[in-house]
Amino acid sequence: MKKSFQIHPVGWIHKKESNITIEIEPQYTGALLGMETFSHILVFYWFHENDDAENRSILQVRPRKNPKNPLTGVFATHAPVRPNLIAITTCKIESIDGAFIRIDDIDARDGSPVVDIKCYLPEKKALEDLKLPDWITRD
Amino acid sequence: MKKSFQIHPVGWIHKKESNITIEIEPQYTGALLGMETFSHILVFYWFHENDDAENRSILQVRPRKNPKNPLTGVFATHAPVRPNLIAITTCKIESIDGAFIRIDDIDARDGSPVVDIKCYLPEKKALEDLKLPDWITRD
Repeated sequence: MKKSFQIHPVGWIHKKESNITIEIEPQYTGALLGMETFSHILVFYWFHENDDAENRSILQVRPRKNPKNPLTGVFATHAPVRPNLIAITTCKIESIDGAFIRIDDIDARDGSPVVDIKCYLPEKKALEDLKLPDWITRD
Repeated sequence: MKKSFQIHPVGWIHKKESNITIEIEPQYTGALLGMETFSHILVFYWFHENDDAENRSILQVRPRKNPKNPLTGVFATHAPVRPNLIAITTCKIESIDGAFIRIDDIDARDGSPVVDIKCYLPEKKALEDLKLPDWITRD
């Protein structure tokens, strides 16, 4: 079993005022076939600004950088510091033009590397007994 | 800008009949603090059995391996062949005991490497104009 895996950027996020696009690298544009049949996508990007040993060793945070929130393990958050710097967000597709997917908005930085995209699927069944902590629901 | 990023397994999926667990590597168990305040988690694992140049170069598939489905780019699917072999699934937490998270079920193989876990959050707002292709909705 390998002890580590390689991730290669498949595209880049561009944020220019209200024009927000994902540019797919030329060798991967074939992977966009049929994407226009979906309204929403899951975009996986890399928290590249935190890709150093220190940020990747942080295991607990105050969620949303709010000191009132309880100290919480990063696996129980979406914090941008974590052992593997995978970010995920759901985006609405505005249009697709060649290698460019225009999206409504994204919580990434201009220049963030995109590492995967998947179609957005609603949950097959309502999640039973959904439970969330106070720090999620009070904002 | 780096041309590739390193992913390290943070845990492993064990499937023994109805006992399905995620075992977190000892150095990462601190990242579980507070996870019990959530009912559901997003589990990111690696399609390790497909980690070779051939499978990572496949850009288009017939979704769900059904020849009746239209040829579709992998970025418009959740197919286990794709440039970066990230898998994502929503799981219900049954219990947490030390380094072991017992979950209800997962669409992974016994032994799959876990690369990240995040809390499951419902979408903040209903997705507007949700659109899905026929191959999703007819099954």
